[in-house]
Amino acid sequence: MTIFMPWVTSLTPKLLFAPLLATATEAEPSMVLAGVLLSLVVIYFASKVGGELSNSLGFPPVLGELVGGVIVGLSALHLLVFAEGGANGSESAIMNFLELTAGLSPDAAEATFKVQSEVISILSELGVIILLFEVGLQSNLKELLAAGIQATIVACVGVAVPFAAGTLGLMTLFGVPAIPAIFAGAALTATSIGITSKVLSELGQLQSKEGQIIVGAAVIDDVLGIIVLAVVASLAKTGEVDISNVIYLIISSTVFLVGAILLGKFFNNSFVAIADKLQTRGQLVIPALIFAFILSYIGAAIHLEAILGAFAAGLIFDETDKRKELEKQMEPIADVAVPIFFVCVGAKTNLGVLNPAVPANREGLIIAIFLIVVAILGKVVTGAAVWGQGNINRLAIGVGMIPRGEVGLVFAGVGSASGVLSPPLEAAIIMMVIITTFLAPPLLRIVFKSGGGEIKSETLV
Amino acid sequence: MTIFMPWVTSLTPKLLFAPLLATATEAEPSMVLAGVLLSLVVIYFASKVGGELSNSLGFPPVLGELVGGVIVGLSALHLLVFAEGGANGSESAIMNFLELTAGLSPDAAEATFKVQSEVISILSELGVIILLFEVGLQSNLKELLAAGIQATIVACVGVAVPFAAGTLGLMTLFGVPAIPAIFAGAALTATSIGITSKVLSELGQLQSKEGQIIVGAAVIDDVLGIIVLAVVASLAKTGEVDISNVIYLIISSTVFLVGAILLGKFFNNSFVAIADKLQTRGQLVIPALIFAFILSYIGAAIHLEAILGAFAAGLIFDETDKRKELEKQMEPIADVAVPIFFVCVGAKTNLGVLNPAVPANREGLIIAIFLIVVAILGKVVTGAAVWGQGNINRLAIGVGMIPRGEVGLVFAGVGSASGVLSPPLEAAIIMMVIITTFLAPPLLRIVFKSGGGEIKSETLV
Repeated sequence: MTIFMPWVTSLTPKLLFAPLLATATEAEPSMVLAGVLLSLVVIYFASKVGGELSNSLGFPPVLGELVGGVIVGLSALHLLVFAEGGANGSESAIMNFLELTAGLSPDAAEATFKVQSEVISILSELGVIILLFEVGLQSNLKELLAAGIQATIVACVGVAVPFAAGTLGLMTLFGVPAIPAIFAGAALTATSIGITSKVLSELGQLQSKEGQIIVGAAVIDDVLGIIVLAVVASLAKTGEVDISNVIYLIISSTVFLVGAILLGKFFNNSFVAIADKLQTRGQLVIPALIFAFILSYIGAAIHLEAILGAFAAGLIFDETDKRKELEKQMEPIADVAVPIFFVCVGAKTNLGVLNPAVPANREGLIIAIFLIVVAILGKVVTGAAVWGQGNINRLAIGVGMIPRGEVGLVFAGVGSASGVLSPPLEAAIIMMVIITTFLAPPLLRIVFKSGGGEIKSETLV
Repeated sequence: MTIFMPWVTSLTPKLLFAPLLATATEAEPSMVLAGVLLSLVVIYFASKVGGELSNSLGFPPVLGELVGGVIVGLSALHLLVFAEGGANGSESAIMNFLELTAGLSPDAAEATFKVQSEVISILSELGVIILLFEVGLQSNLKELLAAGIQATIVACVGVAVPFAAGTLGLMTLFGVPAIPAIFAGAALTATSIGITSKVLSELGQLQSKEGQIIVGAAVIDDVLGIIVLAVVASLAKTGEVDISNVIYLIISSTVFLVGAILLGKFFNNSFVAIADKLQTRGQLVIPALIFAFILSYIGAAIHLEAILGAFAAGLIFDETDKRKELEKQMEPIADVAVPIFFVCVGAKTNLGVLNPAVPANREGLIIAIFLIVVAILGKVVTGAAVWGQGNINRLAIGVGMIPRGEVGLVFAGVGSASGVLSPPLEAAIIMMVIITTFLAPPLLRIVFKSGGGEIKSETLV
């Protein structure tokens, strides 16, 4: 911050920090704000154009938001780049634009860029916290418990097979160290319920036996996926894979989630009572966010993940009488916060490292193909875990579990923030999310059509 | 950022920035997020407790949010302190708490604190942008034009008198330099429409002649106040008071506001058409925010203020068919974003500099009393500017213009960010806002009761 009024002597301490390095002049606060505003304009524009295009082509909007992020980010336009990814201010198209249009001094550009990119990163993390809170709100605990043993087994197989195959394959075939291999393997686990259930409802299969098993498994999958993520992210922080630590982490994240839900049941009534008494604006959404942020903080403080806490908070509120109203009020907040996360995940990824024209990229490309194949086959086999059902369409169940969507992106985002993923591995995970999400809708239509007749008649019995 | 996986060689550039100073280790990203989450919990808690208490005592909620901020901030609990205010990490109760509970290393505390406080500052600035966008949305251009010549004159007198008296008084009586004196004078100009109109409606006086003039003047006042703020903030940036520059700034901010509104009329139809075509979530609120942020950016880039652009965007959308829907969707977003601003303004202010027990504070205290007196008298005289109305309650009109509320806080916030206000002057402005907002409701009730009879009968004619 530059100080124009030297008479204000009590403000001078901050000058002490400024002139340590020739290039390390302080950021200009008004330019940081201008940079954040422009970044948000870029993010919202990319998310809306991408989301709408994707939607109009019959794909989920989140796919378009991700691809929009890839286009404005490190891979192409450089409108949205991040200091933590190793970029500097001169690579940021927004900083160059600010120098041109708003009189940002080149000396201050580096520091301004750094602060601006830190702010956008935190906004993106708040975005994923809001996303998981909303996912928790929309998940239904009763539905989760009623999903049945078949769905539970399908979910467990669908988590275990891709995780094991992915991690072991990366370690043995490609010599990737244990921690990043485990992280990439974990990113293969979680199914995106939104995409599959939308396609199922289009096909009129949401109430079929297959549909019920898929949806039930995807819900359980979310919970398993978040626990896996919390465990893996915590391993990444310590940098060591120690069996006793893994067991401790699995137990602590499970205890945290279950404990929060059980304690939350008591808290529910007082929450509704408090929200009913409050008279001023935000009487529902502010107490809810206070609670969600406290649980997120606890999740982060005990070295699990903030999003685990946000998800638990959402599950808890799901049980209250205020659920519908809260969901409705959270909607515009999520509309504004969540795209920042999706676009940033895309923007931070350098798909250029998978460009097949560069020989050095070949290995990364092969890793990407390997991950995609494991991601698809690892879920397709889950249909085989269903037993005792006559002529059920096992292939359809497997295919229904393929899309990774939002949840896969949460893994990629957390992995990127923790710094354990190499750029090719990060790009490979993003490609895996894009391809599986892209393939699932057409594949689902094909497998349901091929076995469609029998299934429909069976569900009518 | 600490890197645990040395094999990820492409990530090493960021290490170059780290070890320049013993104390300047990099911030821990997960701890920055934890710090931001805790800060938001503190902010939301302070805003809700303060707002509810204030509301239940018959005062506007914003007063309580501000006082809540004062309590959690620099003046008292030190839960919310800011690096830009000269604080360091060890003074932040949240950083101490993170060291205790989340394993933040003391070495990284300083850098983590700095990033965390920068993020909260930007969130607070986004909060005031959302606030002014909402104020613009709720203002009505037609109402503004229909306010009539009497209201316009009342508004102009109510801006000119406190501004001139405040600025000249500070310069001549207290020897305050021109720029901070002008800033403090400008902070005396803008009436808060929300508070007055609420009290008027309680008293059944909203439709009286006095009520109509007060509300009309307060609306015009908002616009004049934002133009004054843009001009003054720009002067603060250059640090010089140059008549030709002042004229240029007044013209440019007026042209910007009027120009945006006129151009916006053309844009309106295409906006509605676009929003109608979009299919994915956020189809109304995202395009609206893109537009608001672009205008805010332009406001910042031409060295006026971002909030001027946000206000213009709000005025423009106010004219569209989508207004009601947009207002409704913006409401939860504002509920979440705006309290961050009010609480931060309170938290950044050190009311300790006005503690009368310390002899060195006497001058600041006298300045505060002077500002409060000018703020009240400067508005009370506006009633005299009404002419040709028989037995109108001139005192009531003057008293109705007293509360500064949100708008005064916007001045204090911008002044604080620009660094031109000395801590005593900043504290004096905050005290002025608190006292005027606190006094207006009871005073209004008294003056309307004293002349109540005649007025009521007159409005019935």
